[in-house]
Amino acid sequence: MLKKEALIREKTEQAVKILQEKGIDCWITFTRESEICGDPTLVFLAPGHVTWHSAFIISSDGRKRAIVGLYDQRTIEETGAYDAVDSYVTGIKEPFERYLKELQPRIIAINYSRTSEISDGLTHGMYLVLYDLLQAIGYEDRLISAEKITSALRERKSPSELEAIKAAISETERIFQLVKGFIAPGKTEKQIAAFMLDEVKRRQLQTAWGESTCPAVFTGPETAQAHYSPTDREVKRGHLLNMDFGIKVDGYCSDLQRTFYVMEKEEKEVPPEVKKGFETIVRTVEECRRAMKPGIQGLIVDQLARQIVTEAGYEEFPHALGHQVGRFAHDGTALLGPTWEKYADKPLHPLEPGMVFTLEPRLTVPGRGVVTIEDMVVVTETGAEFLSHPQTELMLIK
Amino acid sequence: MLKKEALIREKTEQAVKILQEKGIDCWITFTRESEICGDPTLVFLAPGHVTWHSAFIISSDGRKRAIVGLYDQRTIEETGAYDAVDSYVTGIKEPFERYLKELQPRIIAINYSRTSEISDGLTHGMYLVLYDLLQAIGYEDRLISAEKITSALRERKSPSELEAIKAAISETERIFQLVKGFIAPGKTEKQIAAFMLDEVKRRQLQTAWGESTCPAVFTGPETAQAHYSPTDREVKRGHLLNMDFGIKVDGYCSDLQRTFYVMEKEEKEVPPEVKKGFETIVRTVEECRRAMKPGIQGLIVDQLARQIVTEAGYEEFPHALGHQVGRFAHDGTALLGPTWEKYADKPLHPLEPGMVFTLEPRLTVPGRGVVTIEDMVVVTETGAEFLSHPQTELMLIK
Repeated sequence: MLKKEALIREKTEQAVKILQEKGIDCWITFTRESEICGDPTLVFLAPGHVTWHSAFIISSDGRKRAIVGLYDQRTIEETGAYDAVDSYVTGIKEPFERYLKELQPRIIAINYSRTSEISDGLTHGMYLVLYDLLQAIGYEDRLISAEKITSALRERKSPSELEAIKAAISETERIFQLVKGFIAPGKTEKQIAAFMLDEVKRRQLQTAWGESTCPAVFTGPETAQAHYSPTDREVKRGHLLNMDFGIKVDGYCSDLQRTFYVMEKEEKEVPPEVKKGFETIVRTVEECRRAMKPGIQGLIVDQLARQIVTEAGYEEFPHALGHQVGRFAHDGTALLGPTWEKYADKPLHPLEPGMVFTLEPRLTVPGRGVVTIEDMVVVTETGAEFLSHPQTELMLIK
Repeated sequence: MLKKEALIREKTEQAVKILQEKGIDCWITFTRESEICGDPTLVFLAPGHVTWHSAFIISSDGRKRAIVGLYDQRTIEETGAYDAVDSYVTGIKEPFERYLKELQPRIIAINYSRTSEISDGLTHGMYLVLYDLLQAIGYEDRLISAEKITSALRERKSPSELEAIKAAISETERIFQLVKGFIAPGKTEKQIAAFMLDEVKRRQLQTAWGESTCPAVFTGPETAQAHYSPTDREVKRGHLLNMDFGIKVDGYCSDLQRTFYVMEKEEKEVPPEVKKGFETIVRTVEECRRAMKPGIQGLIVDQLARQIVTEAGYEEFPHALGHQVGRFAHDGTALLGPTWEKYADKPLHPLEPGMVFTLEPRLTVPGRGVVTIEDMVVVTETGAEFLSHPQTELMLIK
């Protein structure tokens, strides 16, 4: 099991190396009442929530300091990750400004980003508070976005982080196998989801995202397609059924989709249009995995997927080919996606070893439903390897 | 049970009235990937998380519009709270700017605040994105903080919200009663917390905050005092034990503290210094409740508490007398607190009917431990009433 304190020591050490690599001498995570609107980076810096204004200050020379409210001090100290933890009762201004004047940073990276939500944990009000604090000591013009630091910290997975992700995948795959025996004509999407959530609870696990859409279950040609709660729609023969499901283990997620086909009573073989759709998606996943390697932009891999799907005669899918997975089911900055407005420059980021991505192309088979597979890969030094056991056969319900 | 969709219809209607009262013609909640860094106000506007850039736009003339990514559209539509839900695939710019040009708001309130974390859900990166969008249509100088709107929306509890809070309190009080029979000399803080968490699970409830400090259990004079996880420290005779614990029902929290005294073997009565400490806290809670009414500033109530505690010969407690409770254990903006830097202007806000507060003064009895009671009250039209059954007797462990 990946202990919180070990993770924090590992990640704060990694942060020092990233600061050195990026030529940034100081990185500050500044937050308050993190249960209410928490910075997604805090989990690498503290073992739980913080209440009052808190600053976690890491320097490229290796110094690590936290300044927190009195009641959070002992918990932060016990991580063993910080040289010192200062605390206060009435306000952070004095200890914060004192330490900054001691540090004299040339550049101060803070957690905001127009384009990367995972790097955008500083609220606008807290930005204004921080700006005022820094202005009082003449440092307000040294601020830059910490996106490069917070992205690398999340994206370059350590062996222990990868182990947790693999454990989450393994639990997810087991529940997919179990639910195959439960799915039958007449069963509703809600019943199928309830069966899976019961398995999650029996194993004392957590879903990777909110239970209202985890699992998401879509049967037949009339569904909402994605991000929608299971309905009372019944499984019917001759229809495709797909589901989107993930588990969280030690704080790390899986995110997988599987496609099932419900055979007609007299049917001996899967209908040719279903077969063709499924094989197109299998081929897309495998060819995209082969195209992935360090240095390549996500955009290129996404384009390849779109090309395979559209050349086979299907419409282009209305989302990215794949996203990173980590503490959240949607994690990291670099994206296997098109250069659409909402994705900003995420598809331009080059892939790096240790990044974990989904590959999830999708197409519609008219009158049958949606074919979509979502498998997970990790970028290695030379290419990309499956972390999940990729779906290469339709899961058939007889 | 308070249904999410009903809550959203109730709260969006309430928002229109608040906009009218405050003379603000347009309020925008702007967020993305809310699972990663969600705006705490979103729960009143959408039944789950949203993925792509999303705008929830409420006008003082009663118009309600949401603009969300394609896959979130149907879920938002089905709340029945919006006149229309627009969706997009590649980016929000076009539909967002089109609707804003139609609205022509004079003022645009957005979710940031220097001082109120509950009103500070817009991240700095998303602020910059929104600013750019508005600049393109010449509206960027119309922005103001929505703190008055988002605070009132959370703080003025409806009857159904109060019912959920009462249900959470009732479950919490039941578990305090049960654990009284479990506490005994030699039991550790961890064992006591585990007993309580088992009760939470057996009832299929959720704790009001993270389980590592819910319950928080503190025994004897050597504890961390607050916000700290239970330890292997054993309950000892002649010591005070206190705990901080809350439950969440239908998304609404309780937050209560109770104090226990572990009698010595031959002891017939509670030692006088323990009795005096406990009675001082009971008196403080009751006198502060009596002092509360609409229009009074939290600061005044907090000062009264400090006066009673220090005049009885104890040190001043190093935190606010009480905070609001709602969707979070720490909720709302107005605070029963001192004018310390970190509390900014929160103690200056006048109390309003429907606000739910804790009252949680604290003092230390040397050699024995901490006495602290946390009870919950609601501000009425004329005063304040207990929502919990206030602790007026030490819970004695024999």
